[in-house]
Amino acid sequence: MFVFFGQIVIAQSNYNLVAQGKQRVQLIVGGDFIVTMNEAQPVIQNGAIAIKDGKIVAVDTQYKITSSYRADRTLPGDGMVLMPGLVNGHSHSAMVLFRGLADDLALQDWLQNYIFPAEGKFVDENFVRVGEQLACWEMIRGGTTTFVDMYFQPDVAAKVVSECGLRAIIAPSSIDFPSPGFQGWDDAFASSINFLKRWKGKNERIIPAIAPHAPYTVSPEHLVQAIQAARHYDVPLTIHLAETQAEVKDVQQRYNATPVKHLDNLGFLEPRVFAAHVVWPNASEIALLAKRGVGVIHNPDSNLKLASGFAPIPAMLKAGIKVGLGTDGAASNNVLDMWKAIRLTALIHKGTTLDPTAVPAKTVLRMATLGGAEALGLSDKIGAIKVGLQADLIQVQLKEPHLLPLYDVISHLVYAADAQDVDTVIVNGQVLMEKRRMLTVDPERIRREATSIAQRIKAQFRPSN
Amino acid sequence: MFVFFGQIVIAQSNYNLVAQGKQRVQLIVGGDFIVTMNEAQPVIQNGAIAIKDGKIVAVDTQYKITSSYRADRTLPGDGMVLMPGLVNGHSHSAMVLFRGLADDLALQDWLQNYIFPAEGKFVDENFVRVGEQLACWEMIRGGTTTFVDMYFQPDVAAKVVSECGLRAIIAPSSIDFPSPGFQGWDDAFASSINFLKRWKGKNERIIPAIAPHAPYTVSPEHLVQAIQAARHYDVPLTIHLAETQAEVKDVQQRYNATPVKHLDNLGFLEPRVFAAHVVWPNASEIALLAKRGVGVIHNPDSNLKLASGFAPIPAMLKAGIKVGLGTDGAASNNVLDMWKAIRLTALIHKGTTLDPTAVPAKTVLRMATLGGAEALGLSDKIGAIKVGLQADLIQVQLKEPHLLPLYDVISHLVYAADAQDVDTVIVNGQVLMEKRRMLTVDPERIRREATSIAQRIKAQFRPSN
Repeated sequence: MFVFFGQIVIAQSNYNLVAQGKQRVQLIVGGDFIVTMNEAQPVIQNGAIAIKDGKIVAVDTQYKITSSYRADRTLPGDGMVLMPGLVNGHSHSAMVLFRGLADDLALQDWLQNYIFPAEGKFVDENFVRVGEQLACWEMIRGGTTTFVDMYFQPDVAAKVVSECGLRAIIAPSSIDFPSPGFQGWDDAFASSINFLKRWKGKNERIIPAIAPHAPYTVSPEHLVQAIQAARHYDVPLTIHLAETQAEVKDVQQRYNATPVKHLDNLGFLEPRVFAAHVVWPNASEIALLAKRGVGVIHNPDSNLKLASGFAPIPAMLKAGIKVGLGTDGAASNNVLDMWKAIRLTALIHKGTTLDPTAVPAKTVLRMATLGGAEALGLSDKIGAIKVGLQADLIQVQLKEPHLLPLYDVISHLVYAADAQDVDTVIVNGQVLMEKRRMLTVDPERIRREATSIAQRIKAQFRPSN
Repeated sequence: MFVFFGQIVIAQSNYNLVAQGKQRVQLIVGGDFIVTMNEAQPVIQNGAIAIKDGKIVAVDTQYKITSSYRADRTLPGDGMVLMPGLVNGHSHSAMVLFRGLADDLALQDWLQNYIFPAEGKFVDENFVRVGEQLACWEMIRGGTTTFVDMYFQPDVAAKVVSECGLRAIIAPSSIDFPSPGFQGWDDAFASSINFLKRWKGKNERIIPAIAPHAPYTVSPEHLVQAIQAARHYDVPLTIHLAETQAEVKDVQQRYNATPVKHLDNLGFLEPRVFAAHVVWPNASEIALLAKRGVGVIHNPDSNLKLASGFAPIPAMLKAGIKVGLGTDGAASNNVLDMWKAIRLTALIHKGTTLDPTAVPAKTVLRMATLGGAEALGLSDKIGAIKVGLQADLIQVQLKEPHLLPLYDVISHLVYAADAQDVDTVIVNGQVLMEKRRMLTVDPERIRREATSIAQRIKAQFRPSN
């Protein structure tokens, strides 16, 4: 099973003597198995990928790749799976600094009495800088290569992401009441527009976006303003949607329509929109989301921890909705760990449907990669291993006991692997973690600064109830 | 937060000069936090434990312990939580060799067409020896210190467990039809009685037990024979119970009683019995299990993967049933990872009840330790950190990003920690893993032998459907 890269390394060292006409590339990365998410060839044994200018230029067997390309650098993949990096479709990254501050509470109690007051008191530039760095460290370490960040201080977040090498959609949240740094919707929304003007097209890894918080916290007028701006600036828009039964009831009472229908009534739903949660859509709303091409991000950890419920993922997949996975923020998960979301997704929908064939392993792995990329409107760039796509890749080890023996690599990735099995992470052809060593973040400094902020929060924070 | 053990080491090195009258112990183990499962003092900051003859002789602050005891060896706990080892109340350990062989199938299809045929063809002494070693490696690495093993070849299993230093209830499975090495109930059951005669009282870490497979696969006469033998030899008895709706229907049709009631009608239920799964008890059966003092082992991963359903854990806890956690076998989980079972338990029952305060973190952690020990009838020996109990302990690191910052150590253990965060494992005062280094198993050899068996299975196994 573990074919060593030995012969390939030898082939390479002989290169200068014997092989003429090999194309020079930046990087060759290998794996005992490549899981491609490309239906034409889902798994390649003893595979390798050639990378040039941050893009995948060839995918084939190790033998063929090393016969055709010579690389400045080679990352062998013996005992590894090589696969697309994970796409975390919904997070509030800097909230890692609230991890474990308030658990086992009802959503409204948690939000109104703990999270909003804590954010009001503590979220500033320094909080977001340190929180974003901690989040990026955690995500790189767990093999996430693209994430969606719906939070505050987007310039700070964008700078951190730019430096650590990840890819992100950065979507500053706008809401109709006071939030950190803002009086209400007008100044928050104006600020988010200024952010996207500053960042659009500036860094290919950083995509600014618009994020009205939710149908129950943003007025219809402001929702329309948000989608019009997203169209005008041609950027994605993300929103929390149909997260709880309380939201459905509230929106129904106020606007005489359930949340998805309410948004559709406003002309809000289109392919540039992707919605987080969608736990309580009715059947006609599921059909509507599919018809409008809206992406859905499933956040099973958060939906269960806050007792929001089980999103009807099998029905959404059946309807043809583009479904990705997300972690949500660490205040409600409590980790930015896509492997946990993957495994939970593969398990819980079998329980709710009493059908063990529901949401099989392969489907979940697709949701965590290409499905997420589709939901985010990025599948022309990321989510699969295919010539022409960006080289956002991870190597996952297969040598520890929970991954032995090996019959089915996709089964192991979904039902057995942990974040800590990720060995090496590459984004845009840049190596961000190699053999578990962080190359673009400084763990010691982040640990020290995060601990220091948490000490201040512990000393000063009192829930408002 | 991370108080270093530095001053204590200094205090120790000065010991011979200044401190007279300190009691000599085998081992002192420390932790920034000790999570005790002892309600009198749930968490001790900067704590330490003194161990002598495999037992806990003192639990206190590091200062007090090192003032009163000198140890042959000290395992400092800076940046660590020290807690009781995890109790895995239900597994079929050697089935790790079938990990990922057959996923996303209905329980009866999975069992009849994959697992039973594969077991019939491949399970022999060598299979159990290698499988048990792989399982023990995986469990030690993840901080399990006691497990229940319901499988075949119990002498081989007991020998492996004896050598690797873990604690186990070894319960050879008896069933009314042919199983590996047996024609049917009579020879299987006789063999299990011989096993318990050989092993009872032989090794304090190995407790032989009796295990009729389930009410739908064992006749009433044989069930009575099993419980009578358990009483006669004074050993525990474990059984699969009310796992699926199909079982409930089947037992109801055959015996005119639902499974728990059926067992009670046979006079089967008593405190020495602990039952795995119990996904579909009705309200009166829950009351009955509580009244009879029967332990229940919740296996959420397996119950969801096989689409058996969600066990009514909140109701069982409310009724006062002794509830522990288990992984089940790796053919239906696919890992022997108690941290995954812990987190799943903390999440899914919030989802089914739509109550975010259901099964809070502290309750789940108790289920994984002391609750399991109670269900197994071992709480006078293990499950908590208390003077007089066996020293079955684990240190869990708190330095990696998913565990930063730290407000609530129990929240981190339940919602954020992974098996791979376990740093050091002690059973009966013996160190089995130190700083992630395995001391009692040989990973390279196990990896090689497990891979070799799996290659044979891959080459020869065909599902029988």
